[in-house]
Amino acid sequence: MNTPATLADPDTPFAVVDVHTMRRNIARLKDRADRLGVTLRPHVKTAKSLDVAAHLNSGTPCPVTVSTLAEAEAFADGGYTDITYAVGVEPRKLPRITALSRRGVTLRVLLDSAEQAAFVTEASRRAGIPLPAQIEIDCDGHRGGIRPGDPALVEIGRVLHDDGCLDGVLTHAGESYFARTAEDQCLAAKNERDTAVAAAERLRAAGLPVNTVSVGSTPTAHAADDLTGVTELRAGNYVFFDLVMAGLGVCRVEDIALSVVVTVIGHRPEHGWIMTDGGWMAMSRDRGTAAQAQDQGYGLVTDLAGRLIPGLVMTAASQEHGTLTARDGAALPRLPVGTRLRVLPNHACATAAQHRGYHTVDGTRPARPAPAIEAFWERVTGW
Amino acid sequence: MNTPATLADPDTPFAVVDVHTMRRNIARLKDRADRLGVTLRPHVKTAKSLDVAAHLNSGTPCPVTVSTLAEAEAFADGGYTDITYAVGVEPRKLPRITALSRRGVTLRVLLDSAEQAAFVTEASRRAGIPLPAQIEIDCDGHRGGIRPGDPALVEIGRVLHDDGCLDGVLTHAGESYFARTAEDQCLAAKNERDTAVAAAERLRAAGLPVNTVSVGSTPTAHAADDLTGVTELRAGNYVFFDLVMAGLGVCRVEDIALSVVVTVIGHRPEHGWIMTDGGWMAMSRDRGTAAQAQDQGYGLVTDLAGRLIPGLVMTAASQEHGTLTARDGAALPRLPVGTRLRVLPNHACATAAQHRGYHTVDGTRPARPAPAIEAFWERVTGW
Repeated sequence: MNTPATLADPDTPFAVVDVHTMRRNIARLKDRADRLGVTLRPHVKTAKSLDVAAHLNSGTPCPVTVSTLAEAEAFADGGYTDITYAVGVEPRKLPRITALSRRGVTLRVLLDSAEQAAFVTEASRRAGIPLPAQIEIDCDGHRGGIRPGDPALVEIGRVLHDDGCLDGVLTHAGESYFARTAEDQCLAAKNERDTAVAAAERLRAAGLPVNTVSVGSTPTAHAADDLTGVTELRAGNYVFFDLVMAGLGVCRVEDIALSVVVTVIGHRPEHGWIMTDGGWMAMSRDRGTAAQAQDQGYGLVTDLAGRLIPGLVMTAASQEHGTLTARDGAALPRLPVGTRLRVLPNHACATAAQHRGYHTVDGTRPARPAPAIEAFWERVTGW
Repeated sequence: MNTPATLADPDTPFAVVDVHTMRRNIARLKDRADRLGVTLRPHVKTAKSLDVAAHLNSGTPCPVTVSTLAEAEAFADGGYTDITYAVGVEPRKLPRITALSRRGVTLRVLLDSAEQAAFVTEASRRAGIPLPAQIEIDCDGHRGGIRPGDPALVEIGRVLHDDGCLDGVLTHAGESYFARTAEDQCLAAKNERDTAVAAAERLRAAGLPVNTVSVGSTPTAHAADDLTGVTELRAGNYVFFDLVMAGLGVCRVEDIALSVVVTVIGHRPEHGWIMTDGGWMAMSRDRGTAAQAQDQGYGLVTDLAGRLIPGLVMTAASQEHGTLTARDGAALPRLPVGTRLRVLPNHACATAAQHRGYHTVDGTRPARPAPAIEAFWERVTGW
């Protein structure tokens, strides 16, 4: 694909990543993980891009987490050999998992039942390669997993261990996305750690070896101040951040590295609306900030250089139409048809998923007449 | 791509279209349009598929509506020569529009300002080909357009006419998606028609020729009983339908032709949850039924043959996790890890957009051991 010269060139809507901001976000969490003495295992489900991942560890493949086997395969092709597939495993996915293991990839699978442990160990025996498995631990009632006190924990651990498949435990503080204060996020991080460590200790007390004690979510990864007993930290959203994370105070609005470039296509002054060609197809239907103290609609609006336009919010979306309105008494700016803007997303994972890839800019460079595009980074798609 | 044998074969999640149901939906609206004496111009933004479109008019290209230039180009490549691009035009999109016109495609553009009329006529003069333009009319305050009584209407019409660009008027009753009763939908259809016809008459009274008087939305297209003065009807969603349309009474749940196949990956009996591998990445974040009398969560659940499982609803979603719960006192069914289910979407346009294409089945054929897959139909993506 030819790289157009500036953000004024590609047809809108399209996604853009400010690489300078992204690298700052990456360095921030890497430094934290180093200080906390744990391995950082970024979740690549947000960006789904080998080009983004090349910035995670100075170009050297690092341990990663994936949400689909398509990601696992693409990252294996890119030289990543230490991958955790952090969605509960089911039998029909075992052939692709086994195939990755045969290629020399350490692909860790996740499970929370004896039923799953049975078919994973059976597949391991058939393949002649132990598939490393982690037991999902529920730390906050958010989604899957078992509680550390559940008798099933040791039962599953034993089934896995008998076939050399027991790798460790994994938990995810999904409820931390609703922890509104820094104090609550610290408590969520402490609970996440304590729950994972308790599960590991329980397995060890039963004579079962636990290599990996994995925790993480973007809010808890930035709130944790002591990860004693934990071996690795996972987070995904932090690479781009978004308005939900800014609403939680995990980042500032100026740390959001992902935006969508849109064009003004009309005006309805009698309603106070500016219409754009960026609807939910470009932004996703995610309205995560609707549950926060400050609802940011479908996103905050900046000029093409990335400077916030005070009070301008994308408040409604059709498939290919966005509606911008002014709030807090701000005047609706005069923006002729053809004006390009950028919209900061509620949820970077969901907005990024609406695009084939990202045009990249460096927000610290001069933006006249418009920020220069440096590259196009493709995304991994499908399952 | 090889076509797997049955819905038990492709890795989940994936989208499936029941072609028998889809053809019934298509025939229903085609019959209505014939009876009403108007041209049907389907909006291909829902399915974005030439394979779906081949069923719209017995394999012969018919007039279509598109939401992106990528759709316009793909449909032009597929032999469609009569296309309306129903999103307000902006200057940077003119080169692709002009290129399609040079290929012999009648590509109608939409606008609602003198500013846009000026650059469309200028582009027409430069290209030496009049670009046919429709003036967007606002019938219900939903989105873009001008009111038929706005003095700008005749002004825009004159600018267009002077360069041979005036094709007609177009309106869309977007508020009809919130018209809860059949009576309200009839009123919305009548208002949509009356507004479009009033705008056309106003232009004609000023001596300006109006060829096209275009109306449509899926609810109003199914509610209209008299389209006197209208030349064409647009609708898109009706090909697949969805739970929002079923909630409005425009279709029945059994008319929904699109679903997503997912697999059970775990259980949380203490919460009453069944976990699947179909999250918002597979379903989209669209929760259109949340604003209706019956909130259907992220979707209603059927078995792999498409039979509704009473009371089972997808109530929560992470990126690659879905949570199913029982409601109305229904018992949570026993569904082992590995069980495949289908989820009916809130909003077909949004759910379809999460997938590269559709595996197709014929729901009237025997479904043992699982419905046979007949084909894979690709979607047009991007802008």
